[in-house]
Amino acid sequence: MLNRVRSAVAHLVSSGGAPPPRPKSPDLPNAASAPPAAAPEAPRSPPAKAGSGSATPAKAVETRASFSRPTFLQLSPGGLRRADDHAGRAVQSPPDTGRRLPWSTGYAEVINAGKSRHNEDQACCEVVYVEGRRSVTGAPRELSRGQGLCFYYWGLFDGHAGGGAAEMASRLLHRHIREQLKDLKEVTHESLVVGAIENAFQLMDEQMARERRGHQVEGGCCALVVVYLLGKVYVANAGDSRAIIVRNGEIIPMSREFTPETERQRLQLLGFLKPELLGSEFTHLEFPRRVLPKELGQRMLYRDQNMTGWAYKKIELEDLRFPLVCGEGKKARVMATIGVTRGLGDHNLKVCSSTLPIKPFLSCFPEVRVYDLTQYEHCPDDVLVLGTDGLWDVTTDYEVAATVDRVLSAYEPNDHSRYTALAQALVLGARGTPRDRGWRLPNNKLGSGDDISVFVIPLGGPGSYS
Amino acid sequence: MLNRVRSAVAHLVSSGGAPPPRPKSPDLPNAASAPPAAAPEAPRSPPAKAGSGSATPAKAVETRASFSRPTFLQLSPGGLRRADDHAGRAVQSPPDTGRRLPWSTGYAEVINAGKSRHNEDQACCEVVYVEGRRSVTGAPRELSRGQGLCFYYWGLFDGHAGGGAAEMASRLLHRHIREQLKDLKEVTHESLVVGAIENAFQLMDEQMARERRGHQVEGGCCALVVVYLLGKVYVANAGDSRAIIVRNGEIIPMSREFTPETERQRLQLLGFLKPELLGSEFTHLEFPRRVLPKELGQRMLYRDQNMTGWAYKKIELEDLRFPLVCGEGKKARVMATIGVTRGLGDHNLKVCSSTLPIKPFLSCFPEVRVYDLTQYEHCPDDVLVLGTDGLWDVTTDYEVAATVDRVLSAYEPNDHSRYTALAQALVLGARGTPRDRGWRLPNNKLGSGDDISVFVIPLGGPGSYS
Repeated sequence: MLNRVRSAVAHLVSSGGAPPPRPKSPDLPNAASAPPAAAPEAPRSPPAKAGSGSATPAKAVETRASFSRPTFLQLSPGGLRRADDHAGRAVQSPPDTGRRLPWSTGYAEVINAGKSRHNEDQACCEVVYVEGRRSVTGAPRELSRGQGLCFYYWGLFDGHAGGGAAEMASRLLHRHIREQLKDLKEVTHESLVVGAIENAFQLMDEQMARERRGHQVEGGCCALVVVYLLGKVYVANAGDSRAIIVRNGEIIPMSREFTPETERQRLQLLGFLKPELLGSEFTHLEFPRRVLPKELGQRMLYRDQNMTGWAYKKIELEDLRFPLVCGEGKKARVMATIGVTRGLGDHNLKVCSSTLPIKPFLSCFPEVRVYDLTQYEHCPDDVLVLGTDGLWDVTTDYEVAATVDRVLSAYEPNDHSRYTALAQALVLGARGTPRDRGWRLPNNKLGSGDDISVFVIPLGGPGSYS
Repeated sequence: MLNRVRSAVAHLVSSGGAPPPRPKSPDLPNAASAPPAAAPEAPRSPPAKAGSGSATPAKAVETRASFSRPTFLQLSPGGLRRADDHAGRAVQSPPDTGRRLPWSTGYAEVINAGKSRHNEDQACCEVVYVEGRRSVTGAPRELSRGQGLCFYYWGLFDGHAGGGAAEMASRLLHRHIREQLKDLKEVTHESLVVGAIENAFQLMDEQMARERRGHQVEGGCCALVVVYLLGKVYVANAGDSRAIIVRNGEIIPMSREFTPETERQRLQLLGFLKPELLGSEFTHLEFPRRVLPKELGQRMLYRDQNMTGWAYKKIELEDLRFPLVCGEGKKARVMATIGVTRGLGDHNLKVCSSTLPIKPFLSCFPEVRVYDLTQYEHCPDDVLVLGTDGLWDVTTDYEVAATVDRVLSAYEPNDHSRYTALAQALVLGARGTPRDRGWRLPNNKLGSGDDISVFVIPLGGPGSYS
């Protein structure tokens, strides 16, 4: 296994933006070494397969990996058990006492309602020290230390088909980013930082492919990552998590979701150019519904990879194959198997009851958006909200902005706990309360039964960089 | 050759939106049958090659095709000669008397300053009747006639490496659109109209491929097309022409340009997935500059198809190949050959001094944007401006909006000639006046030496649909 990432775990940062101390030796424990919980009650069985609704890992190493929660939650064995309880679904946040996340970041999470055995979301929040830099032009004094440089880092990882990929990414992705930044002669141009993050995602994915057997990296994960470096916030998204800035009540989208619907044309183009990836089972063309054998020779609406509109074609034998992309909204799937089209891992994922690999259609590359923090005088109520799809499936951007306003106005601007309270309110609002045989929102609609994880990062708060 | 398009040539439309009469028999002359001009003074020579700066076709059929101008200009043989004069560069518009374009559309064009032998832009403006429709839900009475339906059509075609493709597209593309619309059971959903237009572009391109030998369809062309149907304006663009709406002084972009820079990632992806298209001469990777043999083994910034930022890689032998995309701005090229990445034709285009075909990298598919004309009460000063790159190379959207305001305010709102005056002003403003051995703008910068063509379509004018 790789050496532990040599970054300063971000629990000693006080307000004022002073750099964190270098990590003491030995390194602080990270998520992978959280205390193991009591043996799971589920029977021993092979690791969960792709698409399976439940995971019941048996071996000790797997149990530990899939049952770990972020270190910064500081969960005791009893707390870890409570965090893993699908019935109670208690909202977890870092304890109010002692350690605080950088910038007074708020964090809250809740486990799913039984969708998978454990919470497959993972989170990471670090201040990472980049060594060995020759010269840094334009680096503010408080951010550079000697020959080095620090960046702030937040990551949300939403695992699927197992928790291994999310756990591994939460431990190692920032390390890849650090290595990429170390390579740069200069980091002042944002396109170089963007390139470093893009490359880091690819290297993380390649590492998962290499080590998937030795380390039980089952499944894959969406990754939503924020890097703060030299006055700029970089938001990198691969998957269906979402980031928005709420600034003076205004909503600024900082990511977009990558799903079979939003990436239809990219997927179809790949199937068109590399038909061998479709086997003889799928067609890259899209039809409004599955074509029936009796419709051979008839004219039906279709869309090709270059089209956004619909046109007619005469149905041929190949059109009877299953469509590469089908379903709508949350039910949209690539090859009837997976509902997200970007992320890390999934190297073993096959089409259901087939040997066709899904991975060539999944891209590990994030879209990176850059936000210049110095271009605007942020107030303590301006925040960057990161959430996994558990939040956004049942909450609109506007509802989040309303909650931001409601919760933050109930706290003093210099109260460090207000961002955690906000993260908790967002998670609670998406989870709902148990009623009528389900988790229900105040409007009686179903709450999210998914894992829900939320970071609230203040952009001008008491603990922020400024 | 195909039968002439059975559409009503749009010269008898008066204000009030009454449908045009069906075309009389025989069909009115179209661009292809404009009177031939005097024999060109250039010496006989083979047709111009790709990228050549001059075209001097020799055979009668070619002379006619490359020397024709839009029929609606009603040019006499003498007028055609003046329109073809690179020295005078007289601005051409339809005559003020008699025939008028639909909606009182304004049009103006000017030939290039010697870049190619003839004006390689072409234009088309038609009212097209679609026959044989079974039922049209929601079709306003004034637009449907019996079993049929009319759409309004404007097209600008900017040819390169010869005028043949632009001439063919200006004659036939609306016919393909009509055929596609005829196929539809319903046209009320805009995605079906978008699909019909997308399919029509593909079929036009396939027809050019099939008939390129028999009909001397040399070169290729950018295509910018507007279809008005049932209250909606569809703007389809494939190439580097541009359409904007100027509405109450506000600018609404209605297209984007497709160039090696804007389409870098699509081109790189194709080269990455189909390396055989690059031969052994090109690499799909992008470097900030050509890599030198002595830099082998060194680290250099690069971008791959999935990246928007730059990262470092160690230079290998393959990286010494010529980059698939290189150059910046107007000098950006695909395989060092062509500066646009979408359009019709170019089936014979090869990489300079090579046998590698360019066409797989060029897409014939347009991006279609839809504008609902009924959602806003348009005034006579609200216009849709279409221009070839000759206009936009030297004119910003804001300058166009200022000219719209300046020219239209000098005319009565119900004066039909104001839109032609505006189109002329836009062309003149981009061409400039001869001074200091060149065509110069008032600020003494160089005017455009390219062919320049402009349509001004009033959205609430005296001749418009309303």
